[in-house]
Amino acid sequence: MLQISKRGLTMPASPIRKLVPFAEAAKKRGTKVYHLNIGQPDIVTPQACIDAVKNCDVHVLEYSHSAGNESYRKKLTEYYAKNNIDITANDIIVTTGGSEAILFGFMACLDAGDEVIIPEPFYANYNGFAVQADVKVVPISSTIETGFALPPIEEFEKAITPKTKAIVLCNPNNPTGYLYSAAEMETLKNIIIKHQLFLFADEAYREFCYEGQHISAMHLKGAEQHVVLMDTISKRYSACGGRIGAFISKNKSVMDAAMKFAQARLSPPYYAQVLGEAAVDLPDDYFDTTKAEYKLRRDTLVAALNKIDGVFCPNPGGAFYVMAKLPIDDCDKFCQWLLEEFSYEGATLMMAPATGFYSTKGLGKNEVRLAYVLNTDAILAAAECLEEALKIYPGRI
Amino acid sequence: MLQISKRGLTMPASPIRKLVPFAEAAKKRGTKVYHLNIGQPDIVTPQACIDAVKNCDVHVLEYSHSAGNESYRKKLTEYYAKNNIDITANDIIVTTGGSEAILFGFMACLDAGDEVIIPEPFYANYNGFAVQADVKVVPISSTIETGFALPPIEEFEKAITPKTKAIVLCNPNNPTGYLYSAAEMETLKNIIIKHQLFLFADEAYREFCYEGQHISAMHLKGAEQHVVLMDTISKRYSACGGRIGAFISKNKSVMDAAMKFAQARLSPPYYAQVLGEAAVDLPDDYFDTTKAEYKLRRDTLVAALNKIDGVFCPNPGGAFYVMAKLPIDDCDKFCQWLLEEFSYEGATLMMAPATGFYSTKGLGKNEVRLAYVLNTDAILAAAECLEEALKIYPGRI
Repeated sequence: MLQISKRGLTMPASPIRKLVPFAEAAKKRGTKVYHLNIGQPDIVTPQACIDAVKNCDVHVLEYSHSAGNESYRKKLTEYYAKNNIDITANDIIVTTGGSEAILFGFMACLDAGDEVIIPEPFYANYNGFAVQADVKVVPISSTIETGFALPPIEEFEKAITPKTKAIVLCNPNNPTGYLYSAAEMETLKNIIIKHQLFLFADEAYREFCYEGQHISAMHLKGAEQHVVLMDTISKRYSACGGRIGAFISKNKSVMDAAMKFAQARLSPPYYAQVLGEAAVDLPDDYFDTTKAEYKLRRDTLVAALNKIDGVFCPNPGGAFYVMAKLPIDDCDKFCQWLLEEFSYEGATLMMAPATGFYSTKGLGKNEVRLAYVLNTDAILAAAECLEEALKIYPGRI
Repeated sequence: MLQISKRGLTMPASPIRKLVPFAEAAKKRGTKVYHLNIGQPDIVTPQACIDAVKNCDVHVLEYSHSAGNESYRKKLTEYYAKNNIDITANDIIVTTGGSEAILFGFMACLDAGDEVIIPEPFYANYNGFAVQADVKVVPISSTIETGFALPPIEEFEKAITPKTKAIVLCNPNNPTGYLYSAAEMETLKNIIIKHQLFLFADEAYREFCYEGQHISAMHLKGAEQHVVLMDTISKRYSACGGRIGAFISKNKSVMDAAMKFAQARLSPPYYAQVLGEAAVDLPDDYFDTTKAEYKLRRDTLVAALNKIDGVFCPNPGGAFYVMAKLPIDDCDKFCQWLLEEFSYEGATLMMAPATGFYSTKGLGKNEVRLAYVLNTDAILAAAECLEEALKIYPGRI
């Protein structure tokens, strides 16, 4: 019998995208849908970056070096130096989005059956890369009550087995927005050194910190051989469609292995490397406006949510997401109901059910993630929709 | 101990790129190097494609649909219709190069430990994708004496086990240039139907056929559910750096599974989709000039090689590669020697040792692959270098 693989069957579908048909149907009925469900920024891509692509004179659109254009890698070291991350061009492999950097890390550092510890809730696509690499995700739960702070060190110690090879940390965090403190990063450093683990640091939202300082995993002194940075320009410059990221490590064995995976796929995309190279020369205050806008949105959204009866939303330090606890039975049902059966003044809202971000079955059933990628007027209107919806949702508890 | 994965260790390095440092050293010494080693066309990317990127007005460089822009997928159906391949936009997932299409196919259709049959010599990176998917490559040898025709059906029957799930066919072939006949395609069809296997069809060089007609795997009547087309615009429009390919199948289960892998990596690169969309509207005679040029080069190279004492080079029907048998002990040593120790009138040549294309140890030791991606003057000069080199190479047999 002609059959697809068990891996293909096991591979998780995107927990967010499964609601898309319901959103499309709502729009066809004439309902306006506020999209708070995905991390697609509405911020305009910097004109200097767009112009760099427009002005690039290509005669033969050749393969780049498998590690990415040397000029781009050299330029990137300037960007990292500004963030107190001291690396050379040889410590960088340019990847096709942060996604590919995550895949390379799983493939190069973990074998089938190995375990990777990830504080949950976590970015759902880690599950997909784990399936591809045949790696087991071991979650450690963080909770909305603590604002999703790093779970206590004892939880890590309990979860570590002889098969544990790595910890993934997304900082600032998607989906929680949590910004890990210097003390928490130090705790992590001690764990990875004590147990000889890799630390996969997903810092896609490095620039988006509203209170406190971002501590990169690359700043952890003495852990240089353990850290693999999985980076991307997608959120930083609102350039998601370019598909350019970076795999960065000081560990030569890791880099050599990752390079073989990079060679197999030949090269990262050319045009967005040009865009990324131009982005490094943006004025130093480039992020100020963007950050101010996101901070205003966050403050607006968090305040509006906490005003709703029965809703709790911690105020996160970074990224552009908040998690909220709602007085509902089941977030998957609720999010679908919002699209299928609800509207208020001709509108409804789309959110990401939190269950998709938890690996432990049953967790997150009364939580949702909201991405504040809309302007404050839209955010306030969406929050009003939510308030009205919660008044009449049959599964309210 | 902090260690990379066995997978990372097992992952093969590019057999071609390992010679790069020797080529760089030769150039530093002032030696001109004729690059016949890689399939990077020197043909100029069509201006209409380049202009489409230059003129595209991007405000927010958003993620594409995970399956690729709908407008591009719809446009692609026109291209395939011209090639008598009748598909809809829903049969297409736009991928990051042909590479990602191959990876998706291995992941979606094969499990760890499953076997895939590939006529050797074959495109070396299949090995890399097999390692990532933990799949076993089972080679069936084709030989230079037959010009690398499809091995007899008995060889397939002997190789098929209960673990065999797929056959990979690259047509026209890289590295051999061989163009499979209608009769050979029919043979393959019978095998995949009889044994309920997938046929992974890598048709990256579809346009480059100099004698005879290209028979796509998508033309095989009755095998529609078995065939997965792994395509790319890289060679077709000399757009290797764009990183745009396509995963195409009429098999809904396969498409659904592949779509989950596509969702995990979010989207293919945006700009090169714009380029690819414009390419479909190139005039129908666009390929005529390119093909005429490649045919001239092939004829020039094959004639020049066969004139050299002890060299045999079959005349292949497609792609832009030839394989040649040389009177040498070891192609890896010889190719390195050419770069390290030889020059003739200030020049040498770089070729791909054929051992990298064979999976069976010991095969291909006296063969090399030459890519005719240089103009005829350079090809003749390179052939002259080769002739002189063979006169004095210490390992000549």
